Amino acid sequence: MSTTEAKVDPNPVNIGWDTHKAIDAVPDSLTRELDGNDSMRRRFEVLCRNAQDQICAAIEELDGEGKFQQDAWVRPNGGGGMSRVLTGGKVFEKAGVNLSVVYGSMPQEALAAATERGVDRAKGMKPGERVPFFACGLSSVMHPKNPHCPTMHFNYRYFETDGGVWWFGGGTDITPSYLDAADMKHFHGTYKEVCDKHDPEYYAKFKAWADKYFTIAHRGETRGLGGIFFDDQNDKTPDEHFAFSSDCLDAVTKAYVPVVARHKDDEYTQAQKEWQLMRRGRYVEFNLVYDRGTVFGLKTGGRIESILMSLPETARWQYDHHPEPGSPEADIMDAFKNPREWV
Amino acid sequence: MSTTEAKVDPNPVNIGWDTHKAIDAVPDSLTRELDGNDSMRRRFEVLCRNAQDQICAAIEELDGEGKFQQDAWVRPNGGGGMSRVLTGGKVFEKAGVNLSVVYGSMPQEALAAATERGVDRAKGMKPGERVPFFACGLSSVMHPKNPHCPTMHFNYRYFETDGGVWWFGGGTDITPSYLDAADMKHFHGTYKEVCDKHDPEYYAKFKAWADKYFTIAHRGETRGLGGIFFDDQNDKTPDEHFAFSSDCLDAVTKAYVPVVARHKDDEYTQAQKEWQLMRRGRYVEFNLVYDRGTVFGLKTGGRIESILMSLPETARWQYDHHPEPGSPEADIMDAFKNPREWV
Repeated sequence: MSTTEAKVDPNPVNIGWDTHKAIDAVPDSLTRELDGNDSMRRRFEVLCRNAQDQICAAIEELDGEGKFQQDAWVRPNGGGGMSRVLTGGKVFEKAGVNLSVVYGSMPQEALAAATERGVDRAKGMKPGERVPFFACGLSSVMHPKNPHCPTMHFNYRYFETDGGVWWFGGGTDITPSYLDAADMKHFHGTYKEVCDKHDPEYYAKFKAWADKYFTIAHRGETRGLGGIFFDDQNDKTPDEHFAFSSDCLDAVTKAYVPVVARHKDDEYTQAQKEWQLMRRGRYVEFNLVYDRGTVFGLKTGGRIESILMSLPETARWQYDHHPEPGSPEADIMDAFKNPREWV
Repeated sequence: MSTTEAKVDPNPVNIGWDTHKAIDAVPDSLTRELDGNDSMRRRFEVLCRNAQDQICAAIEELDGEGKFQQDAWVRPNGGGGMSRVLTGGKVFEKAGVNLSVVYGSMPQEALAAATERGVDRAKGMKPGERVPFFACGLSSVMHPKNPHCPTMHFNYRYFETDGGVWWFGGGTDITPSYLDAADMKHFHGTYKEVCDKHDPEYYAKFKAWADKYFTIAHRGETRGLGGIFFDDQNDKTPDEHFAFSSDCLDAVTKAYVPVVARHKDDEYTQAQKEWQLMRRGRYVEFNLVYDRGTVFGLKTGGRIESILMSLPETARWQYDHHPEPGSPEADIMDAFKNPREWV
C-alpha cells in the first residue's frame, strides 16, 4: 500500500511535492514576466532579495568562519526560491534565510485557514472555485551555539489573490534560553522605534500579537520572549505597508547582531547547554504543531528542507524536567509563562 | 494579552489542562465504581495494568540498570493515569509505558476526527450535543541508546460513548535506524502469528494499515518499518476484540526484547549515532504532525509529559542530508520509501 492511497488530499494547494527544479544560476526575478517591474509582486521580491543579501553578509561577518550555502530552484508554473543555509559555523550552529515566490491555487477554506482573519479572501470567486494566489516571503531562523546567545526568527511576506485581494504579514521575534533584560530592551526597543515611525499603535498591538501567536498552548508558555508579529494588514495603502515591511527587514541586523556579539564568547556549562537543547525541543514543538508558515508549507508542497531549516540542529526532551526554584532557568521560565514588557 | 484570549476553543474535549492531581498510592481501579467489575471498561483497564507490569519488568531486566519511575494522577471527573518512565538506563535512553483512563465529552466533530472512520460515532445524540465518552489505553515508546537497536512503539485502546457505541484500536510497530532483515522477520512474524490465530485477514490488512498510518507525508517516507495498526474495530463480539488486544499486548516483549538483546552491545561509530539522531528527528516530525494519539492528547488536555514521553531524548536535523548511495543508510531509506514484506 503506498502513501498515494491516503484519503486526505495531500496537496490541497495544487503545487505538488517534488516539482522543484534545482538551478545553478538564479534568474533576476522569480515572478512571472507578466507581473511587471512596478507590481507589488516584483517590488516585494526585490525587497526580500536585497534583505537576504544584507542579512546573510552581516551574519557571515559576525560568525567569522561559516559561509552560507545557496540552493535555488524554480517551479514549472512560475515561482521558485533561494535557500541560504549556514551550518557548523564558529558562532552559529545553523542559520537559514529563505526566499520563496509561490504561484498556486487553493480551496477557499484553505485560504481562510492560512490567514488569521480569513474573511473576504475569496472575493470574486464562485463557491467551490479554487483561488489562484501569489505569495512572496523572506523567512529566517538563526540558532547560535552558545546557550547565552538567543535564537532569532523573522518572516516578512506579501500575499495576493488573482481576485485582487492583498495583504502583508510578518514579524521578528527572539528566543533566548537565558534572560538578559538589557538585550531584551535593545531588541524590543529597536522594533518599537520602527513601529513608532509608522503608527503609534503598532508596537503595543504587534508585541501583544507576538506573545499570543508564539504560545505553545499545550505547555501554557511562549516559545521565547516575543518581538512583533502581524498578519492580514491591508488597511493602509500598499506603499505604506511596503515601507513598514522594508523598515522591519532593515532592523533585523540592528536588533539581533549586537546581542549575539555580546554573548558569543560567554563561558557556559554542560548543564546550560542541555537547558538550551530543552528549549530547542520546545522550539520544535511550536514549529511543528502551531506555526502557520510551517504547517502551511508542509501541506502545500513547499520545499521540505527549506521549511524545516527552521528546526535546530539538535534538540532534547527530558522527562518531566522542572528548573530549580530561584535559578536562572526558573527566571526565564516565568517570563515564558507570563509575558513581560521590555520597553 | 494572555493565551486565554485565543480564538479557538483550547479545550474542545472538556477535560482541561492542569486538572491532574498527582497521587502517591494508585487506587485498584481508575474507572468509576458504577462501571462495575464485569464491564469492558474495567476489564480493559485490568488488561492494560497487567501488561504494564509485565512489560516494564521485562524491560528493566533487559536494561540491567535503569528503573521505571512512576507518576500517577487522578482527575476530578473520574479517570486518571499512571506513567512509568525509565531514563538514562544502560540500554535504554528513554522508555515509557503509560496507562490512561479518560472520562470526557467532546463535540461530535471532534469525535469523528478522533477515529479513522468517524461515521455513526455519535449515535443517539442530538445535533450539536456533546458526546460523553470513555477511553482507556496503554501506550509505549522505547528508545534504546545503541543505533543498532530499534525504537519500538505500541498502543492498545478501548473507546466507548455513553450512547453505547464502542470500538477497539491499537498496534505495535518498530523503527530501526539500520536494517536487519532477520530482526524484521522475527518482529513481523511474531505479530503475524498473533493475527493468524484470530483472523486470516488480519496480518495483511493491519500490516498495510501500519505502513499507511506511519507515513510522514511531507517526506514521502515511513517513520520506521511498520508492524500492525488497526482502529475502529467493532465487527466481532467485544470478547473477541478483547482477546485479540490481549494477545497483541502479550506479544510485545516476545517480538521486541530479543531484537534489542541481540544488538545492545554492538559497536558503533559517531556517524552511526548521528544517523540514529536524524531518524529520531523524523520520529519527532511524525509524532507532532501526524500521530493521532499525540495530537488528540495535546488538544484534549492530556498530561503533557506523558504524551510527549514518546519523543526521543535527543534528535537532530541536518540540512539537506542524503545518505551515500549503496550505504546501509541508503538501504534502509529505500525501505522507508518503499514498504517491504518481511514474512
